Amino acid sequence: MTTPIIAINYKAYPQAFGEKALEIAKQAEKVAKETGVTVIVIPPFTELYRIIQTVEIPVYAQHADPYKLGAHTGYIPVEALKEVGVKGVLLNHSEHQLKLADIHKLVVKARELGLETLVCGDTPEVGAAVAVLEPDMIAVEPPELIGTGIPVSKAKPEVVTRSVELIRKVNPKVKILTGAGITTGEDVAAAIKLGTIGVLVASAVMKAKDPYKVIKDMAEKALQALEKQ
Amino acid sequence: MTTPIIAINYKAYPQAFGEKALEIAKQAEKVAKETGVTVIVIPPFTELYRIIQTVEIPVYAQHADPYKLGAHTGYIPVEALKEVGVKGVLLNHSEHQLKLADIHKLVVKARELGLETLVCGDTPEVGAAVAVLEPDMIAVEPPELIGTGIPVSKAKPEVVTRSVELIRKVNPKVKILTGAGITTGEDVAAAIKLGTIGVLVASAVMKAKDPYKVIKDMAEKALQALEKQ
Amino acid sequence: MTTPIIAINYKAYPQAFGEKALEIAKQAEKVAKETGVTVIVIPPFTELYRIIQTVEIPVYAQHADPYKLGAHTGYIPVEALKEVGVKGVLLNHSEHQLKLADIHKLVVKARELGLETLVCGDTPEVGAAVAVLEPDMIAVEPPELIGTGIPVSKAKPEVVTRSVELIRKVNPKVKILTGAGITTGEDVAAAIKLGTIGVLVASAVMKAKDPYKVIKDMAEKALQALEKQ
Amino acid sequence: MTTPIIAINYKAYPQAFGEKALEIAKQAEKVAKETGVTVIVIPPFTELYRIIQTVEIPVYAQHADPYKLGAHTGYIPVEALKEVGVKGVLLNHSEHQLKLADIHKLVVKARELGLETLVCGDTPEVGAAVAVLEPDMIAVEPPELIGTGIPVSKAKPEVVTRSVELIRKVNPKVKILTGAGITTGEDVAAAIKLGTIGVLVASAVMKAKDPYKVIKDMAEKALQALEKQ
Repeated sequence: MTTPIIAINYKAYPQAFGEKALEIAKQAEKVAKETGVTVIVIPPFTELYRIIQTVEIPVYAQHADPYKLGAHTGYIPVEALKEVGVKGVLLNHSEHQLKLADIHKLVVKARELGLETLVCGDTPEVGAAVAVLEPDMIAVEPPELIGTGIPVSKAKPEVVTRSVELIRKVNPKVKILTGAGITTGEDVAAAIKLGTIGVLVASAVMKAKDPYKVIKDMAEKALQALEKQ
Repeated sequence: MTTPIIAINYKAYPQAFGEKALEIAKQAEKVAKETGVTVIVIPPFTELYRIIQTVEIPVYAQHADPYKLGAHTGYIPVEALKEVGVKGVLLNHSEHQLKLADIHKLVVKARELGLETLVCGDTPEVGAAVAVLEPDMIAVEPPELIGTGIPVSKAKPEVVTRSVELIRKVNPKVKILTGAGITTGEDVAAAIKLGTIGVLVASAVMKAKDPYKVIKDMAEKALQALEKQ
Repeated sequence: MTTPIIAINYKAYPQAFGEKALEIAKQAEKVAKETGVTVIVIPPFTELYRIIQTVEIPVYAQHADPYKLGAHTGYIPVEALKEVGVKGVLLNHSEHQLKLADIHKLVVKARELGLETLVCGDTPEVGAAVAVLEPDMIAVEPPELIGTGIPVSKAKPEVVTRSVELIRKVNPKVKILTGAGITTGEDVAAAIKLGTIGVLVASAVMKAKDPYKVIKDMAEKALQALEKQ
Repeated sequence: MTTPIIAINYKAYPQAFGEKALEIAKQAEKVAKETGVTVIVIPPFTELYRIIQTVEIPVYAQHADPYKLGAHTGYIPVEALKEVGVKGVLLNHSEHQLKLADIHKLVVKARELGLETLVCGDTPEVGAAVAVLEPDMIAVEPPELIGTGIPVSKAKPEVVTRSVELIRKVNPKVKILTGAGITTGEDVAAAIKLGTIGVLVASAVMKAKDPYKVIKDMAEKALQALEKQ
């Protein structure tokens, strides 16, 4: 049985650090337990340790650097993430893009270390190129909608359906998420109706007065949309 | 009828500039005329104008920057290359790698402007990811062999055959070149026997005492290998 | 005797390429001959050759890459610029910033090769840090004013005077230019009154209907301002 | 009274993570308490929280990204470091170099937030350029000696003395450290005799069988060298 996925990118919002960061992780965990939906939290490097020690839902890092262990200052190799206990890593977010060869290296390295990968692309074609590299999940996010509150599932549904179409041609099993502008449970339902299995969100949760309420609504609407399929 | 392709990356070798650069282009043109093989020369930005004014074989740029025309200092957009008269552009060489999204943007822009694209990848998987973006040509070059004089077609033939296999799964028509360490006509013949249509070379020609002789040998052996198929 | 300096950064504006680029260089040369003012043109890499062959005023490159000659694809080392015949090179423009150690390497290399350097900084303090490295010229340009048509000499005269003050503390002889938003001859006069010896301009000339008229006005006002001192 | 400084860059060595990272911090703390020397530990981002919770000596981050809080994925602004509780931040290490304007922004931001800055340079001239920006400490490290075990204080003492000379011309009070190849207490003593107040070390401590012993030796020799002045 498939479960819908809600992945929450903390970015570097003021709420992404300290007690607030921990609180959002706890609320995400609460929703996950109440609904059975997979909720992933993706905090900054400096907050990973504490959150991983506190919650049981999957915690991902926001990025990994394409280096091996050794004489590298201020970079975080995949091994460093493994050591701190993440379940996976977000790669190639439009705010932190990677060279193509490095995406490949990082996906392979993560797989070897038993970490999951969620790789972003900005267009359906880029999503399909990523799919060839066989990450666990792909999120296609038109950068012009990120942070706008205008959901891609409503404003550009053809981006989502075309992504699914192109990705499926080259990779039958990678999980596809919808990203960019996802704000409400309704947006999540739309994303699932368009053929994806979940969403990558950020500001809608991080800047919410009541993050629990937003995540809960997203989880419930995701489940409802999935049941109708 | 298909013609084999020899693409010569001038890089920034001392011979890549001034009179020497022009001389190599003329010798490449001579071989092209004598053999019917497609010989492409790829000089530095600063040498493009003069070489384009002088020879009739295809001249490519070594790189393009992912910017539009406008307030960008010291960058060369695809439009700038169109303006100076190139036939195409090399992208994502292992010495000048690009972010995945930028490769896509540049391939699309070049196509719109009527320029050809030759995109590099460092592994068969990366080659296949590139193939999804539909450039005109792909060269798969294991970086550890570049500049060594150890031809990939001999040292790692499985890289070439696997590249062909993975690329053909997602793109039936893109032209596939073999790169890295190609030094002699024999190496070129091996590359063609492994299923590619030509080679991307650099030091073997640029550092040769007699570039004409090297290019001529490559062209002849390429034709012979192609006829046997 | 000191001559005022007008340095024209072509950037990658549509007018920076082909015949238009050549025409602006000719008009700049005309002003230089008529007034005795030093007018420097700074076209894209791909246009350098043709412009250098055509005009006698100093031609600079917009950037240089911190590499030596050798196996570097799509990069332009200082030696490549020397070969094509530039008089100098613009470095660290706010649209093409360099790592501090690379600025040092490039200034030293240019000096060794007999090329002049014009290095940009975005604040008076950064200008002073650059001055320690002893380039020939420094332009302090607040990035928020670049391309606005709001001249720094009018909107933020204290940036110019503080730049002069901080730079002179560590380097008594480097030539200081004013940049960002310089649009008219009057702006140039203001820049000279504030203690600098000239200007770095771009859009005001590149987008002008009559570039000759704009450059001529700048040159004349610069001379008048300098005579009053 | 001045105290000598030993700053330990953990880099991304295998010992830089998990329990080993914590253990080295405790041993550094032990030396600091026993000798009164200032020992600074500089672990990777992911290890900061735990080490800061455990030891009382100053903990620095290895790098900061030149961004504000907000929509930035996988980057660590200075505010994120303040939040996790660091005492300061290492900037512009030769393995993680920054654009000049960003060094300035980061030094200013750190100062505003009450964090100390230790900025690296690769040559005496670059060290002096950094000094203009008024960080708290500067380490001049010739990159060719980093990680070699060949101490700059022995192999190139003139780099250290010239750094002190050039830096003091523009900044009378910044603390100057010696880096690159520092391996033994004797190297530290030499660094202090050459006019600097301490050292930036990495592999000598991180790869030591007994890090305590190495740090202790460095601290004692530093004190002895300082007393003789």
